[in-house]
Amino acid sequence: MVLVVIRTVLRPDADVAAYEALAVRMDALVRTIPGFVSAEDAGELSLVRFASLEALAAWRNHPEHLEAQRAGRERFYRAYRVEVYEQVRAYDGPAGRG
Amino acid sequence: MVLVVIRTVLRPDADVAAYEALAVRMDALVRTIPGFVSAEDAGELSLVRFASLEALAAWRNHPEHLEAQRAGRERFYRAYRVEVYEQVRAYDGPAGRG
Repeated sequence: MVLVVIRTVLRPDADVAAYEALAVRMDALVRTIPGFVSAEDAGELSLVRFASLEALAAWRNHPEHLEAQRAGRERFYRAYRVEVYEQVRAYDGPAGRG
Repeated sequence: MVLVVIRTVLRPDADVAAYEALAVRMDALVRTIPGFVSAEDAGELSLVRFASLEALAAWRNHPEHLEAQRAGRERFYRAYRVEVYEQVRAYDGPAGRG
């Protein structure tokens, strides 16, 4: 399992409506990528999970997503940080309740 | 870099004041662990970063933390999920602005 943690800060002059429309489109598009697992917003963070680094690469290089990434850099983001992680382990609890 | 993602659901009958006091204490304690990097709350998630799996193991096995984990299982949590990740890569942008 691969986890991508994305933190973004919008430019003060960003067109928020255009940004949100693009974000909605990207949220729909990422769900079509084979190996996509889940996406969630958690405050200022987005957490996106893929089954493998290959699935993430397919998303990262999707032509429409590449265009959106460029729009993000050029028009929307003052700053962003993307962190890519591979899962080591996971566990649930309490036993029998989780 | 190691990232721990923790999602918790309190029991409906949990003593919230006692739980919050314990959480404050654990937040202070984890910061004393060599290799602790950062801790943040993001909605229903907590994200805690350590420099290495060894630093995480030191925290996981800290005697006072072991006691708190037991209290969590027995008194506070209806459910929890802990995921441990190792960082593959990270990048910032836009170039020169990040």
